[in-house]
Amino acid sequence: MTAAWVGICCSKPPCIAVSLRAATYTHGNIVERRAFTINTPPERYIKETDYVGLVSGRDVDKFSTAKLTPVRSDHVDAPYVKEFPLILECKLRHTIEIGLHTQFIGEIVDVKADEAILKNELPDMKMLKPILYAPVVGKYYGVGNYLGEAHTLGKEI
Amino acid sequence: MTAAWVGICCSKPPCIAVSLRAATYTHGNIVERRAFTINTPPERYIKETDYVGLVSGRDVDKFSTAKLTPVRSDHVDAPYVKEFPLILECKLRHTIEIGLHTQFIGEIVDVKADEAILKNELPDMKMLKPILYAPVVGKYYGVGNYLGEAHTLGKEI
Repeated sequence: MTAAWVGICCSKPPCIAVSLRAATYTHGNIVERRAFTINTPPERYIKETDYVGLVSGRDVDKFSTAKLTPVRSDHVDAPYVKEFPLILECKLRHTIEIGLHTQFIGEIVDVKADEAILKNELPDMKMLKPILYAPVVGKYYGVGNYLGEAHTLGKEI
Repeated sequence: MTAAWVGICCSKPPCIAVSLRAATYTHGNIVERRAFTINTPPERYIKETDYVGLVSGRDVDKFSTAKLTPVRSDHVDAPYVKEFPLILECKLRHTIEIGLHTQFIGEIVDVKADEAILKNELPDMKMLKPILYAPVVGKYYGVGNYLGEAHTLGKEI
Protein backbone atom coordinates (compact mmCIF):
# COMPACT_ATOMS: atom_id res chain seq x y z
CA MET A 1 0.00 0.00 0.00
CA THR A 2 0.97 3.67 -0.23
CA ALA A 3 1.51 5.08 3.26
CA ALA A 4 1.85 8.76 4.12
CA TRP A 5 2.59 8.56 7.86
CA VAL A 6 6.08 7.05 7.85
CA GLY A 7 9.35 8.07 9.46
CA ILE A 8 12.55 6.97 11.13
CA CYS A 9 12.04 6.90 14.91
CA CYS A 10 15.28 5.51 16.38
CA SER A 11 18.95 5.31 15.34
CA LYS A 12 20.06 2.37 17.54
CA PRO A 13 18.55 -0.09 16.82
CA PRO A 14 17.55 1.54 13.51
CA CYS A 15 13.75 1.70 13.54
CA ILE A 16 11.06 3.14 11.31
CA ALA A 17 7.43 3.82 12.19
CA VAL A 18 4.45 3.49 9.86
CA SER A 19 0.90 4.35 10.88
CA LEU A 20 -2.02 2.56 9.24
CA ARG A 21 -5.77 2.46 9.73
CA ALA A 22 -7.06 -0.88 11.05
CA ALA A 23 -9.38 -1.00 8.03
CA THR A 24 -6.48 -1.52 5.60
CA TYR A 25 -5.52 -4.95 4.30
CA THR A 26 -1.85 -4.27 5.10
CA HIS A 27 -2.68 -3.63 8.79
CA GLY A 28 -3.90 -7.21 9.21
CA ASN A 29 -0.89 -8.58 7.36
CA ILE A 30 1.56 -6.76 9.63
CA VAL A 31 -0.22 -7.94 12.78
CA GLU A 32 -0.15 -11.53 11.46
CA ARG A 33 3.38 -11.65 10.04
CA ARG A 34 4.98 -9.25 12.52
CA ALA A 35 6.98 -7.87 9.60
CA PHE A 36 6.81 -5.33 6.79
CA THR A 37 8.98 -3.70 4.15
CA ILE A 38 9.30 -0.01 3.31
CA ASN A 39 9.81 0.56 -0.42
CA THR A 40 10.76 4.04 -1.62
CA PRO A 41 9.36 4.77 -5.07
CA PRO A 42 11.31 7.16 -7.31
CA GLU A 43 9.58 9.90 -9.32
CA ARG A 44 9.31 7.75 -12.45
CA TYR A 45 6.94 5.42 -10.56
CA ILE A 46 4.59 8.17 -9.38
CA LYS A 47 1.53 6.79 -11.19
CA GLU A 48 2.05 3.31 -9.75
CA THR A 49 2.60 4.82 -6.29
CA ASP A 50 -0.64 6.77 -6.44
CA TYR A 51 -2.54 3.78 -7.85
CA VAL A 52 -1.41 1.48 -5.05
CA GLY A 53 -3.05 3.90 -2.60
CA LEU A 54 -6.36 3.92 -4.48
CA VAL A 55 -7.23 0.22 -4.39
CA SER A 56 -7.19 -2.50 -1.72
CA GLY A 57 -5.18 -5.71 -1.85
CA ARG A 58 -8.40 -7.41 -0.72
CA ASP A 59 -9.96 -6.71 -4.13
CA VAL A 60 -7.06 -6.51 -6.58
CA ASP A 61 -3.63 -8.07 -7.10
CA LYS A 62 -1.95 -4.65 -7.18
CA PHE A 63 1.49 -6.00 -8.05
CA SER A 64 0.03 -7.46 -11.22
CA THR A 65 -2.13 -4.48 -12.30
CA ALA A 66 0.66 -1.98 -11.56
CA LYS A 67 3.22 -4.22 -13.33
CA LEU A 68 5.42 -4.36 -10.24
CA THR A 69 7.26 -7.49 -9.11
CA PRO A 70 6.93 -8.91 -5.57
CA VAL A 71 10.13 -10.45 -4.22
CA ARG A 72 10.43 -12.61 -1.10
CA SER A 73 12.48 -10.78 1.56
CA ASP A 74 15.72 -12.27 2.84
CA HIS A 75 15.07 -11.75 6.55
CA VAL A 76 11.34 -11.10 7.13
CA ASP A 77 7.99 -12.55 6.09
CA ALA A 78 6.85 -9.73 3.77
CA PRO A 79 7.44 -9.07 0.07
CA TYR A 80 9.27 -6.08 -1.38
CA VAL A 81 9.00 -4.30 -4.73
CA LYS A 82 11.76 -5.32 -7.13
CA GLU A 83 11.54 -2.14 -9.24
CA PHE A 84 12.02 0.31 -6.35
CA PRO A 85 15.61 1.35 -5.59
CA LEU A 86 15.56 1.54 -1.78
CA ILE A 87 14.08 -1.21 0.39
CA LEU A 88 13.99 -1.65 4.16
CA GLU A 89 13.16 -5.05 5.63
CA CYS A 90 11.58 -4.58 9.06
CA LYS A 91 10.67 -6.76 12.04
CA LEU A 92 7.74 -5.50 14.11
CA ARG A 93 8.90 -4.37 17.57
CA HIS A 94 6.12 -2.11 18.94
CA THR A 95 2.43 -1.61 18.16
CA ILE A 96 0.83 1.57 19.50
CA GLU A 97 -2.92 2.16 19.22
CA ILE A 98 -3.18 5.93 18.90
CA GLY A 99 -6.65 6.53 17.46
CA LEU A 100 -7.78 6.11 13.87
CA HIS A 101 -4.23 4.95 13.11
CA THR A 102 -2.17 2.16 14.64
CA GLN A 103 1.52 2.91 14.72
CA PHE A 104 3.81 -0.01 13.87
CA ILE A 105 7.46 0.41 14.82
CA GLY A 106 9.76 -1.93 12.95
CA GLU A 107 13.45 -2.60 13.43
CA ILE A 108 15.27 -2.24 10.12
CA VAL A 109 17.11 -5.56 9.77
CA ASP A 110 18.26 -5.09 6.18
CA VAL A 111 18.66 -2.28 3.65
CA LYS A 112 18.83 -2.92 -0.10
CA ALA A 113 19.86 -0.07 -2.40
CA ASP A 114 20.33 -0.02 -6.16
CA GLU A 115 23.88 0.76 -7.25
CA ALA A 116 22.31 3.48 -9.43
CA ILE A 117 21.30 5.62 -6.41
CA LEU A 118 24.60 5.31 -4.53
CA LYS A 119 27.27 7.98 -4.19
CA ASN A 120 30.27 7.06 -2.03
CA GLU A 121 28.33 3.90 -1.08
CA LEU A 122 25.38 5.83 0.42
CA PRO A 123 21.97 6.64 -1.10
CA ASP A 124 21.99 10.08 -2.72
CA MET A 125 18.81 12.17 -2.58
CA LYS A 126 19.13 13.53 -6.13
CA MET A 127 19.73 10.06 -7.57
CA LEU A 128 17.02 8.37 -5.48
CA LYS A 129 14.45 11.07 -6.42
CA PRO A 130 11.90 10.18 -3.70
CA ILE A 131 8.37 11.59 -3.90
CA LEU A 132 7.16 14.12 -1.32
CA TYR A 133 3.46 14.13 -0.39
CA ALA A 134 1.47 17.10 0.88
CA PRO A 135 -1.57 15.66 2.66
CA VAL A 136 -5.07 17.23 2.66
CA VAL A 137 -4.26 19.27 -0.46
CA GLY A 138 -3.16 16.00 -2.10
CA LYS A 139 -0.12 17.13 -4.06
CA TYR A 140 3.15 15.38 -4.91
CA TYR A 141 6.51 17.15 -5.16
CA GLY A 142 10.06 16.17 -6.02
CA VAL A 143 13.21 16.93 -4.05
CA GLY A 144 14.58 20.35 -4.97
CA ASN A 145 17.84 22.22 -4.77
CA TYR A 146 20.73 21.32 -2.51
CA LEU A 147 20.74 23.98 0.21
CA GLY A 148 23.94 23.20 2.10
CA GLU A 149 25.86 21.05 4.51
CA ALA A 150 24.32 20.07 7.86
CA HIS A 151 26.39 20.63 11.05
CA THR A 152 28.32 23.29 9.12
CA LEU A 153 25.98 26.10 8.05
CA GLY A 154 25.08 26.78 11.70
CA LYS A 155 28.68 27.56 12.61
CA GLU A 156 28.25 30.95 10.94
CA ILE A 157 25.80 32.00 13.69
CA MET B 1 16.31 21.87 19.23
CA THR B 2 16.58 20.65 15.65
CA ALA B 3 15.02 17.20 15.34
CA ALA B 4 15.35 14.89 12.35
CA TRP B 5 13.10 12.01 13.44
CA VAL B 6 9.67 13.66 13.23
CA GLY B 7 6.42 12.70 11.50
CA ILE B 8 2.64 12.66 11.63
CA CYS B 9 1.48 9.35 13.13
CA CYS B 10 -2.31 9.62 13.40
CA SER B 11 -5.10 11.58 11.68
CA LYS B 12 -7.76 11.36 14.42
CA PRO B 13 -6.85 12.67 16.90
CA PRO B 14 -4.14 14.47 14.88
CA CYS B 15 -0.82 13.35 16.36
CA ILE B 16 2.83 13.86 15.57
CA ALA B 17 5.80 11.83 16.81
CA VAL B 18 9.26 13.14 17.59
CA SER B 19 12.14 10.91 18.68
CA LEU B 20 14.87 12.34 20.91
CA ARG B 21 17.87 10.95 22.73
CA ALA B 22 17.53 11.01 26.52
CA ALA B 23 20.78 13.00 26.63
CA THR B 24 19.15 16.07 25.07
CA TYR B 25 17.93 19.00 27.17
CA THR B 26 14.61 19.00 25.29
CA HIS B 27 13.97 15.35 26.27
CA GLY B 28 13.86 16.30 29.96
CA ASN B 29 11.66 19.32 29.26
CA ILE B 30 9.08 17.22 27.42
CA VAL B 31 8.98 14.60 30.18
CA GLU B 32 8.50 17.38 32.78
CA ARG B 33 6.01 19.58 30.94
CA ARG B 34 4.22 16.83 29.01
CA ALA B 35 4.09 19.22 26.07
CA PHE B 36 6.11 20.40 23.08
CA THR B 37 5.79 22.48 19.93
CA ILE B 38 6.88 21.59 16.40
CA ASN B 39 8.18 24.63 14.51
CA THR B 40 8.79 24.32 10.76
CA PRO B 41 11.67 26.52 9.62
CA PRO B 42 11.55 27.88 6.06
CA GLU B 43 14.64 27.85 3.82
CA ARG B 44 15.61 31.40 4.75
CA TYR B 45 16.25 30.23 8.33
CA ILE B 46 18.52 27.33 7.36
CA LYS B 47 21.56 28.67 9.25
CA GLU B 48 19.56 29.18 12.44
CA THR B 49 18.03 25.70 12.03
CA ASP B 50 21.42 24.07 11.70
CA TYR B 51 22.86 26.11 14.58
CA VAL B 52 20.07 25.09 16.96
CA GLY B 53 21.10 21.47 16.37
CA LEU B 54 24.77 22.15 17.15
CA VAL B 55 24.49 23.53 20.69
CA SER B 56 22.58 22.51 23.84
CA GLY B 57 20.04 24.63 25.68
CA ARG B 58 21.89 23.57 28.84
CA ASP B 59 24.87 25.72 27.80
CA VAL B 60 23.45 28.49 25.63
CA ASP B 61 20.27 30.57 25.33
CA LYS B 62 19.77 29.54 21.69
CA PHE B 63 16.81 31.83 21.12
CA SER B 64 19.02 34.77 21.95
CA THR B 65 22.14 33.76 20.00
CA ALA B 66 20.10 32.75 16.92
CA LYS B 67 18.03 35.96 17.19
CA LEU B 68 14.77 34.01 17.36
CA THR B 69 11.86 34.98 19.60
CA PRO B 70 10.27 32.54 22.08
CA VAL B 71 6.51 32.96 22.49
CA ARG B 72 4.36 31.39 25.19
CA SER B 73 1.95 28.86 23.62
CA ASP B 74 -1.80 29.33 23.93
CA HIS B 75 -2.65 25.78 24.96
CA VAL B 76 0.49 23.97 26.16
CA ASP B 77 3.44 24.60 28.47
CA ALA B 78 6.16 24.98 25.82
CA PRO B 79 7.41 27.97 23.81
CA TYR B 80 7.23 28.33 20.04
CA VAL B 81 9.37 30.27 17.57
CA LYS B 82 7.71 33.52 16.51
CA GLU B 83 9.66 33.82 13.23
CA PHE B 84 8.69 30.37 11.87
CA PRO B 85 5.54 30.23 9.71
CA LEU B 86 4.02 26.90 10.79
CA ILE B 87 3.64 25.92 14.46
CA LEU B 88 2.02 22.89 16.08
CA GLU B 89 1.19 22.98 19.79
CA CYS B 90 1.24 19.41 21.16
CA LYS B 91 0.18 17.65 24.35
CA LEU B 92 2.19 14.51 25.18
CA ARG B 93 0.03 11.38 24.83
CA HIS B 94 2.47 8.44 24.54
CA THR B 95 6.12 7.87 25.41
CA ILE B 96 7.80 4.86 23.80
CA GLU B 97 11.32 3.81 24.81
CA ILE B 98 12.71 2.29 21.62
CA GLY B 99 16.47 2.30 22.11
CA LEU B 100 18.87 5.24 21.81
CA HIS B 101 15.79 7.37 21.04
CA THR B 102 12.62 7.90 23.04
CA GLN B 103 9.60 8.50 20.86
CA PHE B 104 7.18 11.17 22.12
CA ILE B 105 3.73 11.15 20.52
CA GLY B 106 1.89 14.43 20.94
CA GLU B 107 -1.69 15.32 20.10
CA ILE B 108 -1.76 18.46 17.96
CA VAL B 109 -4.09 20.76 19.88
CA ASP B 110 -3.45 23.91 17.83
CA VAL B 111 -1.98 24.88 14.47
CA LYS B 112 -0.72 28.38 13.73
CA ALA B 113 0.14 29.33 10.15
CA ASP B 114 1.32 32.62 8.70
CA GLU B 115 -1.09 34.13 6.17
CA ALA B 116 1.92 34.32 3.84
CA ILE B 117 2.11 30.51 3.43
CA LEU B 118 -1.63 29.94 2.89
CA LYS B 119 -3.35 29.15 -0.38
CA ASN B 120 -7.12 28.54 -0.16
CA GLU B 121 -6.68 28.67 3.62
CA LEU B 122 -4.22 25.72 3.71
CA PRO B 123 -0.43 25.72 3.99
CA ASP B 124 1.17 25.52 0.55
CA MET B 125 4.43 23.59 0.16
CA LYS B 126 6.02 26.07 -2.26
CA MET B 127 5.16 29.04 -0.05
CA LEU B 128 6.17 27.30 3.19
CA LYS B 129 9.52 26.18 1.70
CA PRO B 130 10.34 23.58 4.39
CA ILE B 131 13.86 22.14 4.63
CA LEU B 132 14.51 18.47 3.82
CA TYR B 133 17.30 16.69 5.68
CA ALA B 134 19.31 13.73 4.40
CA PRO B 135 20.81 12.06 7.49
CA VAL B 136 24.24 10.38 7.63
CA VAL B 137 25.42 12.31 4.55
CA GLY B 138 24.28 15.51 6.34
CA LYS B 139 22.77 17.46 3.46
CA TYR B 140 19.84 19.87 3.29
CA TYR B 141 17.51 20.19 0.29
CA GLY B 142 14.53 22.32 -0.64
CA VAL B 143 11.18 21.16 -1.99
CA GLY B 144 11.31 20.75 -5.77
CA ASN B 145 8.90 20.61 -8.67
CA TYR B 146 5.21 19.90 -8.40
CA LEU B 147 4.78 16.37 -9.77
CA GLY B 148 1.01 15.97 -9.86
CA GLU B 149 -2.26 15.44 -8.07
CA ALA B 150 -2.62 12.63 -5.52
CA HIS B 151 -5.57 10.23 -5.83
CA THR B 152 -5.74 11.18 -9.52
CA LEU B 153 -2.49 10.16 -11.25
CA GLY B 154 -3.07 6.51 -10.29
CA LYS B 155 -6.36 6.35 -12.18
CA GLU B 156 -4.37 6.11 -15.41
CA ILE B 157 -3.13 2.63 -14.38
